[in-house]
Amino acid sequence: MRMRKIKWAVDYLEHAKSLVQPEDHKGNWKSFLGCETLHVEIGCGKGNYSLGMSNIYPEHGFIAVEKNESAAGIAAKKYDDEEHGRLCLIHRDAANIEEWFAEKEVDIIHLNFSDPWPKKRYSKRRLSSATFLEQYKRILKDDGQIQMKTDNSSLIEYSLLEFLSHGFDLIEVSVDYRREEHKEDVLTEYEEKFVSLGQPIYRAVFAKKKEN
Amino acid sequence: MRMRKIKWAVDYLEHAKSLVQPEDHKGNWKSFLGCETLHVEIGCGKGNYSLGMSNIYPEHGFIAVEKNESAAGIAAKKYDDEEHGRLCLIHRDAANIEEWFAEKEVDIIHLNFSDPWPKKRYSKRRLSSATFLEQYKRILKDDGQIQMKTDNSSLIEYSLLEFLSHGFDLIEVSVDYRREEHKEDVLTEYEEKFVSLGQPIYRAVFAKKKEN
Repeated sequence: MRMRKIKWAVDYLEHAKSLVQPEDHKGNWKSFLGCETLHVEIGCGKGNYSLGMSNIYPEHGFIAVEKNESAAGIAAKKYDDEEHGRLCLIHRDAANIEEWFAEKEVDIIHLNFSDPWPKKRYSKRRLSSATFLEQYKRILKDDGQIQMKTDNSSLIEYSLLEFLSHGFDLIEVSVDYRREEHKEDVLTEYEEKFVSLGQPIYRAVFAKKKEN
Repeated sequence: MRMRKIKWAVDYLEHAKSLVQPEDHKGNWKSFLGCETLHVEIGCGKGNYSLGMSNIYPEHGFIAVEKNESAAGIAAKKYDDEEHGRLCLIHRDAANIEEWFAEKEVDIIHLNFSDPWPKKRYSKRRLSSATFLEQYKRILKDDGQIQMKTDNSSLIEYSLLEFLSHGFDLIEVSVDYRREEHKEDVLTEYEEKFVSLGQPIYRAVFAKKKEN
């Protein structure tokens, strides 16, 4: 979603403590963050999800990725204030995400309310399109997972078919995830809005297909 | 859904022309109905779906299955009145459906608004539970399909996981099927009600997994 430029956030980002350069940590993320379980949230927006998850799972490492600099600045401010030792931010486009991680380095990838890019000519920009899925497969460990949430019916439909036809199994699926309480999972900013409007949240969890 | 006993319908069923005994036609359904494409609707209720589909696809054969005798009687009356040569009714429980069809005899199985049997101890009665899926696999031809519609979120979630883990691929999926027009598909009695209430219709199409 397009966002107005927020000057303080853009300025803040330049010196944020939680901001990291992914090339510096490739293959060493878990020792850098002092964790055994590594999460990557692609498209963290203003950052509430990874922040909240980090509070629920303080032993886990969280890397939040956001390309919009205003959103990234807002997220960075939250992450710095909280002084979480295992929460950091990458301000980049995730198009070549496999360059940031060693093979099988990541445990869980989160795709929350990703841009649906509804027009077919932009379908390659969807975070659940084939080029991304091939990269996720390489950086995910063998029993790693991708957890996806969205309010967009077309995006969940597209993603179910795309994941299943590119080497992933469907592990969990919900067409109305918030009809039950899920204390193990945090609401994103968008999710809070959609839930308050009574709109259903779609969620799917995928795992790499077991090698035969 | 439980239904009050409707005397005229129960009486009508006894002499309905469209009522057939499945054992009489096993392996010969296509020649019996004079068709090349054979549909089976399990749980046809009052019969509108197969009737409507038969109007859209007059060359196709339709076998509607209903165990409730009042519903079956109402469906039979409609089928008799329409004098469709390629539409017939089986008044039986589908628990042993594989006994009615030869291997690979069926092209498309329709599961419309099936009883969700929400309690776990009755999950084996769901028409998308493993025992049924194994039977569907045997009676479906290799590129045959199962088309499923429901208003029940738990049932579609259960069914997606169950089909995918029992040798089926997901071909199409919709979490709000009636947000677009589908002139190729008929609304069932339940579906009309749910659509008029603004509730989403979930739909999935499965095919037998290709042998490796």
